[in-house]
Amino acid sequence: HHRDSVVFGGRGMSLEETINASNDYYRLHQRAVIYKKPTPIQIVKVDYPQRSQAVIREAYFRQASTTDYNGVYRGYYLDFEAKETTNKASFPLKNFHQHQVNHFRNCLAQDGICFTIMRFTTLERYFLTPASLLIEYWGKQATGRKSIPLTTIQKTGYEIPAGFQPALNYLDAVDQLITTAKR
Amino acid sequence: HHRDSVVFGGRGMSLEETINASNDYYRLHQRAVIYKKPTPIQIVKVDYPQRSQAVIREAYFRQASTTDYNGVYRGYYLDFEAKETTNKASFPLKNFHQHQVNHFRNCLAQDGICFTIMRFTTLERYFLTPASLLIEYWGKQATGRKSIPLTTIQKTGYEIPAGFQPALNYLDAVDQLITTAKR
Ligand SMILES: [Mg+2]
Ligand SMILES: [Mg+2]
Repeated sequence: HHRDSVVFGGRGMSLEETINASNDYYRLHQRAVIYKKPTPIQIVKVDYPQRSQAVIREAYFRQASTTDYNGVYRGYYLDFEAKETTNKASFPLKNFHQHQVNHFRNCLAQDGICFTIMRFTTLERYFLTPASLLIEYWGKQATGRKSIPLTTIQKTGYEIPAGFQPALNYLDAVDQLITTAKR
Repeated sequence: HHRDSVVFGGRGMSLEETINASNDYYRLHQRAVIYKKPTPIQIVKVDYPQRSQAVIREAYFRQASTTDYNGVYRGYYLDFEAKETTNKASFPLKNFHQHQVNHFRNCLAQDGICFTIMRFTTLERYFLTPASLLIEYWGKQATGRKSIPLTTIQKTGYEIPAGFQPALNYLDAVDQLITTAKR
């Protein structure tokens, strides 16, 4: 584990760890307040042993109804999902779920800033892409292609350069997304 | 349980059920996208029985670091905590926690719309109060009083009238909070 050392571009960390570490950094430096939402769990049985903390003894994973991350930045509501692929030329749509697409649609209707962070693990490249791109490809996948080409992601999204502190400085790309019309 | 019947002002429902039902209503009618955050759980042991879903066999409740609810409304980031009291003349500060106050401070610094929904159970009255009121009383509780007087809540907050659909129509009070300077 590299928890205590500086990790360049989150190398050796999972995408989730990289983003969580970046969010911790942003909160500490008062740049933004963004958290990963806890996994929804249905709790069935809890033991309350004397003199020690409660233990959950039976529980089940529930289907999430939203995306993984949300928060506030410069007065804007941010909402995003982070996914990775080992593909080199395109990002597979099967990495996403219907409920995430629906949630993006709902948040966009309320003028939220919605996006995905896509990691191409093999290439070690990260992109922030507007949720509208995912929605567009998602809607036509029945008759069209089942992945988003990297060339399209490069054109429509914003590459996030690997860094030290934070490990993934995605807020600059958010700034660009906010100022553009093609959300 | 009154789940399937119309419940006036959430009578017979817990405060959390009342707010969750209202949020479902708001989402359905595309008024706002607001969810209760799942309880954070630390999972230690999971069984994967053949041909059936995973069962969590050992897990622990973790301390939350934020408030219970957040979401997006008209481009604004909303963040709030809902609490109730049986008191009739004031709302006890002990119902809140340090991490909630810290989180409000952080979100206000990012221009989020932050508030509490307070239910006076005995009086059957609900108020939306700006987070700044809680922060003010919280900061002086060591030397000052340990509760916020109802008279102050009435003056600084917005009463939420009991309703049918949604059970607690708090967005009108949010509209007022947004337009006022005293956030
Ligand atoms: Mg995810
Ligand atoms: Mg609560």
